[in-house]
Amino acid sequence: MKKEPIPSVKGTRDFYPSDQAIQNWLRGVIQKISQKYGYQEFEGPELEYLDLYTDKTSREILEDQVFILKDRDERDLVLRPELTPTLARMVAQRSAELPAIIRWYCFGRAWRYERPQKGRGREFFQWEINILGPETPEADAEILAVAADFFRELNLTPLEVTIRVNDRAYFDQILKENNIDQKKFIPLLRVIDRQEKISLEEFTQSLANEGLTSDQIEAIKRYLSERDYSRSPWLTQVFESLENYPGVREYVTFDPTIARGFDYYTRTVFEAWDKTGQLKRSLFGGGRFDDLTATLGGQHIPGVGMAPGDMPIEALLRSLDKLPIIRPITARALVTAFDEKLASKSTRTAATLRQAGISVESWVGGVTKLDKQLKYASHQNIPFVVIIGPDEAKDGKLTIKNMQSGDQQTVDFERAIEILKGKV
Amino acid sequence: MKKEPIPSVKGTRDFYPSDQAIQNWLRGVIQKISQKYGYQEFEGPELEYLDLYTDKTSREILEDQVFILKDRDERDLVLRPELTPTLARMVAQRSAELPAIIRWYCFGRAWRYERPQKGRGREFFQWEINILGPETPEADAEILAVAADFFRELNLTPLEVTIRVNDRAYFDQILKENNIDQKKFIPLLRVIDRQEKISLEEFTQSLANEGLTSDQIEAIKRYLSERDYSRSPWLTQVFESLENYPGVREYVTFDPTIARGFDYYTRTVFEAWDKTGQLKRSLFGGGRFDDLTATLGGQHIPGVGMAPGDMPIEALLRSLDKLPIIRPITARALVTAFDEKLASKSTRTAATLRQAGISVESWVGGVTKLDKQLKYASHQNIPFVVIIGPDEAKDGKLTIKNMQSGDQQTVDFERAIEILKGKV
Repeated sequence: MKKEPIPSVKGTRDFYPSDQAIQNWLRGVIQKISQKYGYQEFEGPELEYLDLYTDKTSREILEDQVFILKDRDERDLVLRPELTPTLARMVAQRSAELPAIIRWYCFGRAWRYERPQKGRGREFFQWEINILGPETPEADAEILAVAADFFRELNLTPLEVTIRVNDRAYFDQILKENNIDQKKFIPLLRVIDRQEKISLEEFTQSLANEGLTSDQIEAIKRYLSERDYSRSPWLTQVFESLENYPGVREYVTFDPTIARGFDYYTRTVFEAWDKTGQLKRSLFGGGRFDDLTATLGGQHIPGVGMAPGDMPIEALLRSLDKLPIIRPITARALVTAFDEKLASKSTRTAATLRQAGISVESWVGGVTKLDKQLKYASHQNIPFVVIIGPDEAKDGKLTIKNMQSGDQQTVDFERAIEILKGKV
Repeated sequence: MKKEPIPSVKGTRDFYPSDQAIQNWLRGVIQKISQKYGYQEFEGPELEYLDLYTDKTSREILEDQVFILKDRDERDLVLRPELTPTLARMVAQRSAELPAIIRWYCFGRAWRYERPQKGRGREFFQWEINILGPETPEADAEILAVAADFFRELNLTPLEVTIRVNDRAYFDQILKENNIDQKKFIPLLRVIDRQEKISLEEFTQSLANEGLTSDQIEAIKRYLSERDYSRSPWLTQVFESLENYPGVREYVTFDPTIARGFDYYTRTVFEAWDKTGQLKRSLFGGGRFDDLTATLGGQHIPGVGMAPGDMPIEALLRSLDKLPIIRPITARALVTAFDEKLASKSTRTAATLRQAGISVESWVGGVTKLDKQLKYASHQNIPFVVIIGPDEAKDGKLTIKNMQSGDQQTVDFERAIEILKGKV
């Protein structure tokens, strides 16, 4: 009785070796860029208490998008919807002993219960990269430079992607200048964050719903149409610092409409956007969160960072035909098994080749025609095949077949190692 | 008002960079061994439907140890308690297109709601490594050789660890010979699996509770005291094949008391044990599961594999003082910021050094005494410090300080690159 196949959970991904090879390539790019700037890798639990996110992460995520479960004491646990709170908790826990500048990165999983679509799943990976300690525009500029460097490494040009930067503290100042209650700071940011998805009329109505007068609404609209960051001394210095990074400035633009959904951002906020129209939304975001560690019970340690997700980046690269062709790493050789009598000798040869530092597969599929074994090696893209037939066994030799050229030669063991190591 | 710090969830781990460095080292060992034998990396979701495990994984895990949650359609989801069912599901899904021999590995997270203790947590990593396709003793021998090779790479000797191997099919034959109902196969394996934890009296009673006559009980006890595997033709061939791997045989012993908790094992089962008495329990296990892909709705694709966890291995290495000292990767140099005026020049120099392929941190901590910046570099184990003071700026030079020797020299940019690259 054949059972119905059990499917994977909606919004999750199976990484077959060909998919995992791409994922490893992306991880390699992320490691390279992170290490180039001296960031050290950390990781944290994927399960956290719900309290870690309450009043900090975006309300939208907490209300609708977290995977929640209960431990046996009925406490609410969640699968982390993002990594910044875990990072901040870890820093808060050891605030006394950590260095003056904390540069940490991680490429880890996160979950959100969203509608799966192009470049968006319920289980995904995020590159969490942050500087904690300094409350300086230079730190913000470095994070933006890292983002631009990442794009450059991926061969994404300033014509294809852009990083839109804003300053929440400057927005706060606009509220003060227009006598808008500070309590409306977060609600108004949420309205602005939705702005691109709604009509101008709806937008005006949303601002009015927050209790703003028509003068105040006009002031907000004026603020949103500004194209000059000089009224924010902070952003002025961030942009100044950016000039020190060759080839970075052209990726970054000032954009007062950037608000970001996360409540914990205090100052610089930014979003990277696809300009090609392939994804029609933000690729990732980041910003400065100066109060998060204190909110979590640690010392006040300011921070700035970002969290590019793997899925939108891969989707964009795929759309633009810029995802490199990456194949899984294979063994250098398949050692075939000639017949039942000689199989043992093949296994032993394979083991000896491995001791010589060569990665080899041995044929453990039982008595099988040589043809089929060769076909397997070819299907797996294994570059060489080693054959030990009766003649080779008698003479103490190996036959090595180059699967690409089809050439084969019968050689002794030392010579075989040289060939397999690519030295001849 | 200072809040209470929010703790991490019990049984989970925070990987600070110094912990992550060890984790990365272990991942490196696992990758090295896996690739040496030609295994390719895969990954899967960490969330799966509960159905994937029912009647396959151990009853103990399913009843007491899974982290369970509901999706919005009220279907039961679990955080994977192990990785073999995910692997089997993925193979089952593509059974028609996969090669004759599937060698896949993964180093991924799993969860079990157990009492945290030395070498055991609720969230941990497992090295899942398997061969699917061949139903041959040679495949089983290779997995055992991989396990022994792993131990050797970790500098764990046959005096410290051992791999105890058994054959469930041979046990099945014992049942037949003694007219014991086949339905008692799994329940009796469970009794045997608990054997080492209970008294001989309790053990005899447990067998009697399964409805065995005293003759049958004696037969089971006789079977358990056997030290010769020759009555199992399968194991005889496995041990024969093992002889082809230099230095492996001494890690492996026949042990009829090995039963394994997982229901899906059909033939070879094995457990690696610590012999030093540090952990007093199995380090990891594995075995042959010939029916799992068919049970999950795919073609019948036999398989064999194992799943070493990171925590018992690390705990054992630590107990034996064999865990190597691994430090996080640092930048080659810290480029200091001399004063406010020269900070920009430092940032620009750092960016240029990075373009030359050198990993550098730049001081983004604002105006800070040079002493404090040097202290930071020393605390971080950064080997070089670059100083650009007024003299250097005027002459277009850099001062490079070797943090270990204390030597410093003022050089031009080309020479600086050579020093930082370790070429002089």
